[in-house]
Amino acid sequence: MIYAGIDLGGTTIKGALVTDAGEIICEKSIPTRGERPNREVVQDMANLVLELVASQNMDIHDIESVGIGSPGAIHPIEGKVMFAANFADFVNVPMVDIMKETIPVPVYLENDANVAALGEAMFGAGGGSRNAITITLGTGLGGGIIIDGKIFSGAFFGGGEMGHQVIVADGLPCTCGRKGCWEVYSSATALIRMGREKAVQHPESKIYDQVDGDLRQLNAKHVFDAADAGDEYAKEAIQEYAHYLAVGLGNTINVFQPEYLIIGGGPSAQGDKLLNPVKKELKKEIFGGVTKTQVVIAKLGNHAGVIGAAMLGKTREV
Amino acid sequence: MIYAGIDLGGTTIKGALVTDAGEIICEKSIPTRGERPNREVVQDMANLVLELVASQNMDIHDIESVGIGSPGAIHPIEGKVMFAANFADFVNVPMVDIMKETIPVPVYLENDANVAALGEAMFGAGGGSRNAITITLGTGLGGGIIIDGKIFSGAFFGGGEMGHQVIVADGLPCTCGRKGCWEVYSSATALIRMGREKAVQHPESKIYDQVDGDLRQLNAKHVFDAADAGDEYAKEAIQEYAHYLAVGLGNTINVFQPEYLIIGGGPSAQGDKLLNPVKKELKKEIFGGVTKTQVVIAKLGNHAGVIGAAMLGKTREV
Repeated sequence: MIYAGIDLGGTTIKGALVTDAGEIICEKSIPTRGERPNREVVQDMANLVLELVASQNMDIHDIESVGIGSPGAIHPIEGKVMFAANFADFVNVPMVDIMKETIPVPVYLENDANVAALGEAMFGAGGGSRNAITITLGTGLGGGIIIDGKIFSGAFFGGGEMGHQVIVADGLPCTCGRKGCWEVYSSATALIRMGREKAVQHPESKIYDQVDGDLRQLNAKHVFDAADAGDEYAKEAIQEYAHYLAVGLGNTINVFQPEYLIIGGGPSAQGDKLLNPVKKELKKEIFGGVTKTQVVIAKLGNHAGVIGAAMLGKTREV
Repeated sequence: MIYAGIDLGGTTIKGALVTDAGEIICEKSIPTRGERPNREVVQDMANLVLELVASQNMDIHDIESVGIGSPGAIHPIEGKVMFAANFADFVNVPMVDIMKETIPVPVYLENDANVAALGEAMFGAGGGSRNAITITLGTGLGGGIIIDGKIFSGAFFGGGEMGHQVIVADGLPCTCGRKGCWEVYSSATALIRMGREKAVQHPESKIYDQVDGDLRQLNAKHVFDAADAGDEYAKEAIQEYAHYLAVGLGNTINVFQPEYLIIGGGPSAQGDKLLNPVKKELKKEIFGGVTKTQVVIAKLGNHAGVIGAAMLGKTREV
């Protein structure tokens, strides 16, 4: 069986046809141009599906369903995007209804972080697990929770905000209004801040070499590269980052005890360079130092979104 | 339909017959005497069920099932108590199998905090909600999570440890080995500690009047009573306590967004005296200051355990 998946992003709309084994048959990306009226954006998404289907000499009825991962606050049952920042006209958009004007097969909608987590659980680092949580380290810290093979987002679809758990009461302010959220200490942004702080405190730090002396250019990889070059201060920043990341992972394990806890996003590209210090810190955060939960790096990268979106149809059917 | 529930505690074993509407038909408590061999304790539980059934002139086959809430680490599928502190001989106890030697109807086993949460969700403060979380403020901070009408305890039945989420990274040590757990800041024990600290800092505090000058006697009610008597330091202790409690509740709402978040245990007996300052603090901890989650005080008290245990059979059937 074949499913279509759409990953709506701020810059591009990715589309793919995906088998029920999670294999991408074909894919295409088009620019989002989120400054347009919502209907135009959604119409482009529908046309992208039709184009993908035609490219395989298939009929639209040859696919089981279309799944969409969208940023913002989603009502999956009503098929609406309640609100999405970075789009000019995305307030209360009946996305599924608009899609259905063109698409005669079932259409499903979910939050983008949730579908990425579904993709990783089913066909990525979760290896088919029905109980896996994915966190994504980016500008913020996003999370997606899969319980019993399905997306869990609370009684009102607004849960799963893993990054907005306070781990440092009365700590640094978060964009959400709270103080000390996990996101503030463990997003990619946080690692960059920690690297900058170390560099400012220690003008001899090799962190400066990574950015020609301009700390405004610093990204997560630079901090790891400086550590590789032997810089003690970069190592300290990574150690500090690993500590806070492990605190939040420990919370997640104690509360959810998933089979897999999957780490994606920019810093996760460092693989063991990130995972090893995190796992060392994590031993201090779980009872007896051991857990049945496997903490792993995400595998699907940018494809997690389209694959997970496509699988919405599959998981809703069962 | 009628279900039997057993609430195994460190001091007493409570048993009850419960209708599928959550009404207790009859109940009885016997001493646990946990220093005995595990088989003797479990045999007493089975006999208690038979006695309750006989007291209603019923046959054992007139009840649908027996549900047990036990302290400790539980394997609900294998029907085993892996370990329970405060019992002399509770390591790897095949509790369900031992019960079945005497009881010819289905027997179910779960953790005691989980069954209490199930009882509160179905027939207590949750008012029949299928998505409710109960936290219990006692010596520690226990939690039980109900998702889609069933107990959620993670992929390996060890999740749901709400109290062992760090909310103050590198904070005060917890019995679990971590630093800064919610339990350390929001259990009843924590309120007592905060009250004592205020009293020690302020020898003029009316907190001393509650305990004839002996702070070792202080309990949670004393702190509230001193506040009622106008003591500013007791009020400060309650305010500090409400702040940390709200931090953890905010985390729970952001991640789980349950319909009901139910607060039980000693300090919850204060009702609005606890709830009002907590709700005021909670406004700072949730996006926009509002949430669809209702934060309420538990209703079933000591009966939550037997009612929830009895309902294990009902929720496992569906």
